Amino acid sequence: MKLALDAMGGDNAPKINIDGAKLVLEKQESIKSIYLVGDESILRKACDAAGIGSNPKLQIVHAPEVVSMEESGLAAVRQKKHSSMSLAVDLVKSGECAAVISAGNTGAAVAASTIKLRLLEGVERAGIVSPMPSVHGYVLVSDTGANPDAKPSHLIGYAVMSAMMARYIYNRPMPNVAVMSNGTEDCKGSEFSKEAYRLLKMLDEQALLPFHFTGNCEGHDLFETELDVALTDGFTGNILLKSVEATAKAFSHWLKAGIKKSPIAMISAIGMRSVFRSIAESMSADSVGGCPLMGVNGVSIIAHGSANGTAILNACRMAEGMHRHNVNDRIIEAMARINPALHGLH
Amino acid sequence: MKLALDAMGGDNAPKINIDGAKLVLEKQESIKSIYLVGDESILRKACDAAGIGSNPKLQIVHAPEVVSMEESGLAAVRQKKHSSMSLAVDLVKSGECAAVISAGNTGAAVAASTIKLRLLEGVERAGIVSPMPSVHGYVLVSDTGANPDAKPSHLIGYAVMSAMMARYIYNRPMPNVAVMSNGTEDCKGSEFSKEAYRLLKMLDEQALLPFHFTGNCEGHDLFETELDVALTDGFTGNILLKSVEATAKAFSHWLKAGIKKSPIAMISAIGMRSVFRSIAESMSADSVGGCPLMGVNGVSIIAHGSANGTAILNACRMAEGMHRHNVNDRIIEAMARINPALHGLH
Repeated sequence: MKLALDAMGGDNAPKINIDGAKLVLEKQESIKSIYLVGDESILRKACDAAGIGSNPKLQIVHAPEVVSMEESGLAAVRQKKHSSMSLAVDLVKSGECAAVISAGNTGAAVAASTIKLRLLEGVERAGIVSPMPSVHGYVLVSDTGANPDAKPSHLIGYAVMSAMMARYIYNRPMPNVAVMSNGTEDCKGSEFSKEAYRLLKMLDEQALLPFHFTGNCEGHDLFETELDVALTDGFTGNILLKSVEATAKAFSHWLKAGIKKSPIAMISAIGMRSVFRSIAESMSADSVGGCPLMGVNGVSIIAHGSANGTAILNACRMAEGMHRHNVNDRIIEAMARINPALHGLH
Repeated sequence: MKLALDAMGGDNAPKINIDGAKLVLEKQESIKSIYLVGDESILRKACDAAGIGSNPKLQIVHAPEVVSMEESGLAAVRQKKHSSMSLAVDLVKSGECAAVISAGNTGAAVAASTIKLRLLEGVERAGIVSPMPSVHGYVLVSDTGANPDAKPSHLIGYAVMSAMMARYIYNRPMPNVAVMSNGTEDCKGSEFSKEAYRLLKMLDEQALLPFHFTGNCEGHDLFETELDVALTDGFTGNILLKSVEATAKAFSHWLKAGIKKSPIAMISAIGMRSVFRSIAESMSADSVGGCPLMGVNGVSIIAHGSANGTAILNACRMAEGMHRHNVNDRIIEAMARINPALHGLH
């Protein structure tokens, strides 16, 4: 497969993207070509410095503009037609590449992918699927920010898209899918979550769902139960995701502060280093790499702004897996079965 | 002040409530009387066993019924008129006690307090205010579950109630208050959060707010910035709160699992014990004690189901502080200034 990398995206761009490309060249043979999109002279120099300047799998595509992290996503797509992000998405739109990866402005990545690639047949809205570490592996939360004002029916699409991710990328053939709520009982929830629950239950009773619908779930179920997919609107999902990331950071902060206060703890911490490192790795967004924006015609992975080279490698691997398993075709097929019943229900 | 304790509430009731009452008797002189509400013979024995059976500050009020953790809150209030929770709230309603504390069924505590005590003058909806530890102390999140389908105007009341908690209980004279959103820019948010933002901004421009409105905040601001109050609907707030609690638990789980795997780490962990203990304490709900249900006519504190005696003591101390500072009167005054402008805006 061929892959477009928004080389100017991310807090430490282009370095992280050059590092990532180098790792892909070394470790992921199935990726036949990487298009690095960004300022040609900067990228040329950076590739030479990294010792990959003459690698035949690498192509540099010049993009004179860059979308900053602060810009409005929609405005950036409309006004900066020659940004590295826009041109990277264009490579997927034209069919030259199968996937685009960007660690840049999330809003702009969502807008560019949705506007340029358009929605998959049968999908109402695109959604971001965020893999979060749990004690059982990963739980996929969707949507985490593409669509803050979701309708209940949008969650059906998120459920199918996330379930296909769980099946093909996280090796969960019949994933457990639940609706996030403020209580697990059927009667609990907001009007929004209760309606989503009702739609899923009716589709489940007609045996139309390609996953196991388990009902409502609460915040703690994300970590503690054998849950594979948790569904919510992009507003709640985004707040949830950032709060969980921040809790993990706060925990580290308190740990470091506590260690500094006590000489015995400081010495003991040395013996704990491998444990701390393994927790940091399992909680780090870098080991996941990125979150796919699902429901668009193509593969679009949004990496964290603070991504490093390893994160970019992992995001590229996720893209390769989604492409190899034809995840988008599986979504189209599932939605074709579901939609007649779903639209009959409305 | 006099205080009613739902002695049958909590996963480990009545033990935790007896433990809590004993600690209050030992450490909190300003609480002149504790009414333990629950099964008289069980409570009598438990008090005797704890050595507080003949303490003149303690009164046992017999309640033949108990609300279980699984019951629907509203149904429990309607059907079990003689539950320990209902009768404890009745003691506040009649004016006999100034505050009620329960570690029982949250939905039932919200329903009983709202129905029996009624709303404070000028308050549209009651909300739960949850103090969460941050690197700067505490941030108060409201609402965390009383009202899953909030209207934007309800957040004005939550803002005032939480700000008064921040001022009088957490010693923040001019608290920083923000609306939770999926981005900090003015334009970010759901239709709901954007309307709440607009209302707060207009009230702020008229200098009617008894706090500093700082705009939007994201999940990570809860821990990292000098934020005192974060506003959201009860659906999002509940998911957020439980997810954060679960993240902290997952972190401990990974830490313990990692330590078990390595003999060096196991030995080193002994030297880190004081650090782990201090983190566990600062992240534990027990050090906060409980979350006030604010906006009702009286003081009602909801403790965690897994509360221990220390949590009950701290919940009682919170109630004492709210009563001593006349927090409810301060809320009524602030709402009286705000409401004409707020209702003019609609």
